[in-house]
Amino acid sequence: MTIRAFVFDAYGTLYDVQSVLERVERACPGRGALITQIWRLKQLEYTWLRTCMEDFANFAVVTRDSLVYALHVAGVEPAEALVTELEDAYLHLTPAPEAHDSLRALEGHTRAIFSNGSVAMLDALVLNTGLKGLLEHVVSVDSAKVFKPSPKAYALLEPVIGVPPNETMFVSSNGFDVAGAKRFGFQVAWVRRGGGPGTAPADAGPTDMFKAQRLHAEMLNAKPDHVLGSLTELVDLR
Amino acid sequence: MTIRAFVFDAYGTLYDVQSVLERVERACPGRGALITQIWRLKQLEYTWLRTCMEDFANFAVVTRDSLVYALHVAGVEPAEALVTELEDAYLHLTPAPEAHDSLRALEGHTRAIFSNGSVAMLDALVLNTGLKGLLEHVVSVDSAKVFKPSPKAYALLEPVIGVPPNETMFVSSNGFDVAGAKRFGFQVAWVRRGGGPGTAPADAGPTDMFKAQRLHAEMLNAKPDHVLGSLTELVDLR
Repeated sequence: MTIRAFVFDAYGTLYDVQSVLERVERACPGRGALITQIWRLKQLEYTWLRTCMEDFANFAVVTRDSLVYALHVAGVEPAEALVTELEDAYLHLTPAPEAHDSLRALEGHTRAIFSNGSVAMLDALVLNTGLKGLLEHVVSVDSAKVFKPSPKAYALLEPVIGVPPNETMFVSSNGFDVAGAKRFGFQVAWVRRGGGPGTAPADAGPTDMFKAQRLHAEMLNAKPDHVLGSLTELVDLR
Repeated sequence: MTIRAFVFDAYGTLYDVQSVLERVERACPGRGALITQIWRLKQLEYTWLRTCMEDFANFAVVTRDSLVYALHVAGVEPAEALVTELEDAYLHLTPAPEAHDSLRALEGHTRAIFSNGSVAMLDALVLNTGLKGLLEHVVSVDSAKVFKPSPKAYALLEPVIGVPPNETMFVSSNGFDVAGAKRFGFQVAWVRRGGGPGTAPADAGPTDMFKAQRLHAEMLNAKPDHVLGSLTELVDLR
């Protein structure tokens, strides 16, 4: 099957969600790792729970709510100024080191982001990080009022990009997104940087627990078509 | 409003899911806590993801899949004999110490379990632990083909127990279940044993990370009507 479009997950795939750690640690010295990991874990959890509950709120709300939860866990008062400072980090995430070059190498194909992020968050992010000119489309789940991996979310993509799922390479580092996209009918590439997290130590701390929960192969009855070490390998799938 | 029925979540509320730790530690020395916590965290995650993906498999499948995931994380080969030995622990969970007495004290009201568990798992569990005779109904999400907190799951309850949600006290230790049940229209009591987990240490290990992710108040736009320290306090809500 010819691949006519490459569609990228944003958070964790084109962008490093761990890059918020520096700002969190500066604001909450000694508790940066704990807050960063609980924040991301609960952020994803709230997307799934709100989808299950049929009680959608956009990713800006979910990102703020999960941050407040993480601050509570760490015993930090979620003061308005602190929350505002930290949630801003999601508009300035560091792109994966190979993101620009990899997108450039795919020029001539349709290149798009498909993300849980709200329209406003994604627009700011691609502008702030110089990826805007390397993408033909930036598509949010917003208008479906559900988050990934709901099929109602993935169904938004084809009408926007004009390429059917079986001619689209869906690229994600997130195992749940890989499973959802594959089940929906996309060609799927799982980006597993560094070959995966390896075995967790018995006394796994917050960052190890994040990796343990998020970076191993999921038992979800839908396998990716390709497993890549980085976005650089996408040129071989054109 | 008169309360005519008390409906209990099973895993974490009437039963201690942490009671599997002893068997896991015996089978996998030194890695019991890591495996136990990842197992439970992924077990819940898979219920939410399968609900979002519209790809239901019952709780026995989800329990086995999440156990295999947890064993992979810990570097333990998921041999058939080991998996079978450990998943059996879910049929012999230790009831909360106050469970029997608290159910007995509510005699005269309709008492029911409403759980993500499969029909077969729940039937075995209440029989093995002596709770069977203290419950008028044991209701599984199975026939809705979704898990909690989907409203399609909670909707199964009234036709079985014959009591409408606003006359039913829904009792759960699980924050997501509290939010889902409240949003559906139940009276809700959140059982927060020991007053909650307290602040997590900066170097939180597997068990602290489990508590950090699961036992704090959820930011999900639906608050319980009552917060209890144990099931013993339910008699005051009759």
